[in-house]
Amino acid sequence: MSETSSGSRTLEVSLGSRSYPIHIGPGLLGQPDALAPWLAGRQVMIVTNEVVAPLYLERCRASLPEGVEVRELVLPDGEATKTLASVERIWDALLEAGFNRRCTLVALGGGVIGDMVGFAAACYQRGVAFIQVPTTLLSQVDSSVGGKTGVNHPLGKNMIGAFWQPRAVLIDTETLASLPPRELSAGLAEVIKYGLIRDVDFLAWLEREMAALRDLAPEAMARAIERSCAIKAEIVAEDETEQGVRALLNLGHTFGHAIEAHQGYGVWLHGEAVGAGMLMAAELSARLGWLGAAEVARARAIIEAAGLPLAAPADMSVEDFLARMRLDKKNIDSRLRLVLLRSLGDACVHDETPLELLETLIETFPRVD
Amino acid sequence: MSETSSGSRTLEVSLGSRSYPIHIGPGLLGQPDALAPWLAGRQVMIVTNEVVAPLYLERCRASLPEGVEVRELVLPDGEATKTLASVERIWDALLEAGFNRRCTLVALGGGVIGDMVGFAAACYQRGVAFIQVPTTLLSQVDSSVGGKTGVNHPLGKNMIGAFWQPRAVLIDTETLASLPPRELSAGLAEVIKYGLIRDVDFLAWLEREMAALRDLAPEAMARAIERSCAIKAEIVAEDETEQGVRALLNLGHTFGHAIEAHQGYGVWLHGEAVGAGMLMAAELSARLGWLGAAEVARARAIIEAAGLPLAAPADMSVEDFLARMRLDKKNIDSRLRLVLLRSLGDACVHDETPLELLETLIETFPRVD
Repeated sequence: MSETSSGSRTLEVSLGSRSYPIHIGPGLLGQPDALAPWLAGRQVMIVTNEVVAPLYLERCRASLPEGVEVRELVLPDGEATKTLASVERIWDALLEAGFNRRCTLVALGGGVIGDMVGFAAACYQRGVAFIQVPTTLLSQVDSSVGGKTGVNHPLGKNMIGAFWQPRAVLIDTETLASLPPRELSAGLAEVIKYGLIRDVDFLAWLEREMAALRDLAPEAMARAIERSCAIKAEIVAEDETEQGVRALLNLGHTFGHAIEAHQGYGVWLHGEAVGAGMLMAAELSARLGWLGAAEVARARAIIEAAGLPLAAPADMSVEDFLARMRLDKKNIDSRLRLVLLRSLGDACVHDETPLELLETLIETFPRVD
Repeated sequence: MSETSSGSRTLEVSLGSRSYPIHIGPGLLGQPDALAPWLAGRQVMIVTNEVVAPLYLERCRASLPEGVEVRELVLPDGEATKTLASVERIWDALLEAGFNRRCTLVALGGGVIGDMVGFAAACYQRGVAFIQVPTTLLSQVDSSVGGKTGVNHPLGKNMIGAFWQPRAVLIDTETLASLPPRELSAGLAEVIKYGLIRDVDFLAWLEREMAALRDLAPEAMARAIERSCAIKAEIVAEDETEQGVRALLNLGHTFGHAIEAHQGYGVWLHGEAVGAGMLMAAELSARLGWLGAAEVARARAIIEAAGLPLAAPADMSVEDFLARMRLDKKNIDSRLRLVLLRSLGDACVHDETPLELLETLIETFPRVD
C-alpha cells in the first residue's frame, strides 16, 4: 500500500506477468491521462450502462489522452442483462468499429458491467486489454479485483466465463455518492465477508464503523475499500484460478447463488443474497459445533446493521436450494462443498456436511414474511 | 520424439505447467483406457459431428475407462456451424447434465469441432479440461496443436475465442482412410506451409512424396504429420499467445481468411483458401524482390500437386480482399501485417508492403474460371 499526497492509494495484485495496480481515491476519474498508462494501443471502447453513462461517461472520456480513437457502448442496466447476448453486442460493436487485438476496453460501472466487459475482452480475438473503473461499492471491493469474468446462464450464475486480469483498476470513491442505499448495503455484504473469512479485527472495526459507512463517511469508506481489496488481492495472489484458498471468497455465495437463480437474476441484489447466505453459513457452522451462539449473534447483528436480509425468500423449499447448490462450481464430482466458519475470521471449505444437517438448516432458516 | 513398439510416437508441446503430449499412431482410438490418463474427473462429454459420429464415436467411447459418466453431443458438420450458437449448445448440454468444473470434454472430429469444443471448455465454469481427438489431416497437423480455440463471427473468422490448451492430443492415423480427397488436399496445405515457413528440407521431401501422401501411404503420412506437429509445437512453445514468431503460422491465412469470409464460411475449405493464399504470399514476396521466379514456381507446383486451387474466387475485387484483410488479428493499430517469404523455408512478418504493390498483386492474381 502506498499513499500519495492527493489522498489516493495504490495496491498491487501480485500475479507475475499479469500483476496490476488498484488505485483508490476521491476524484480519480476525470484526471487527465488517468487511464493513459494502461492503454494497449490507440483504440479504446468504453462500455457502460444507461444509469452510469449520464453520471460518469463524460469524466471517463476526459481521463483518456488526446489522439486515441474512442468508442462508447451503453448497455441496459441490471443483473438480468448479464447474458451472453449482451457480450455479443460488445463483440459486434468492436468488429463493426474494426478494432484489432491491441484495443483496450474500459468497464465503467458495477459488477455486471465489469464481468461482461472482462469476458468480452478475454475472448475478443482471443484476448485484449481491459481496465476496470468500478462505480459501485460491490464492484470496487469484489468483482473488479481478481480476474473473474463471465455471464449468467438460465441454469446457473456465472457459468460461462474466463479468468482474465485487467491492466489496472481505478476506484474513484466519489462515485459512491450516487449509489442507492440498497446497493450500498449489498456492497457492504462483501466487505463484511472479508472480516468473517480472514480478519476478525477488521470485523470488529466494521461493527464500530457501520453507521459511518452507511453515511458514506469518506475516511471510513476509503479504509473499508482498501482493506477489502487488500484481503482479496492477497487471496487471489495465492490462488489465481481457484484451486484452493480462493474458494473462501465464496462464503455465503453457494446459498446466495441459489437464491438469486431461484428468484430470477436481479430480483434480489447479489449482495443481499450473499448477506442471507452468510448467515445461513454461520448457522450451519454452529450446527457443526464450530461457532457458538454469541458468534452467530455477532454475524447476524453486523449483517442486519448493514441493512441486509436475515431471511430467505418465502417460496424457496429445501429442494429449491439443494437443486441449485448441486450445480455450484466448487463441487468436485457430485460432492457438495461449502465455505463455512471455524470461527469468526477463519473460514474453511468443507465437503463433509451431513445432508440431513444441511436440510434441517435450510428447513428451519427464517423466510421473508 | 519417442517411438514405441506399436509404431506410435509421442511429441511433447512444452508450455510449462500447460505442457501436453501429442500421441500419433495407427489404431490409437479404441485402445482401452487410451483417454484415461487425461481425464480431470469422472464426468466426460464427447462432442462430435454427424459425419464423424457413425465412424468413430463407438471407438472413442471404448477408449474411456469403466465407471465414468459419459455423455455424447452430436453437432451438425461444417465450417458454417462454427458459431457461438453451436458452442452454446455444448454449454447447455453440460449444464443440463449437471457437469462440474472437473469434467472433461473430448473433441472428436476435425478443426471445427476442435476449435468449438476447446472454446466451450475454455469458458465453461471459467475453464475445464479437454482432449483433442482430431480425425482430419488439417486438424491433426494444425488446429489440434497450440491451444487456439474459437468460433467465427459474421464479420470475421475466429474473431471470438481463447487460448486454451488441451490435456492431450490423440492422433489415430487410421481415421484418414475415411477422409474425402478434397479434405485431404486441404490438410496438405498446412503441411506444405510448415515446409515453406521453416524447413526447406521438409519441403523438398514433400515434393518427392506428394503422390504417396495423396494415396495415404502410411509411412509417408505418419512422417508428414509428425514433422508438421513438431514444427508447430516448437513455434507454439516459443510464443504461446502469438506475440511474435507464432504469427508465421499464418502464412497464406490473411488472404485465405478474406476468401473464406467473402465466400461465406464453408464454401471454400479452409485449406483450399490457405493454398491460394500461400501462392498470393509467395507472389507478393517475389514482387518485393525476396523470392526468385524459380522459387515461386516451386511453391506453385507443390500447391498444385496437393490438389489445391491456384486462383482466387472469380467475383472477389481488390477492395473485397482489402476490407477483410484490414480486420486481421495480426494488424497493429491500422497497419496491415502480412506473413511473407524471405526465401523458401524462411518466413517473416512484414508491415511495410506498399499498398500499391499489394493492390497490383491482388488485381493481377488469377481468378477461378
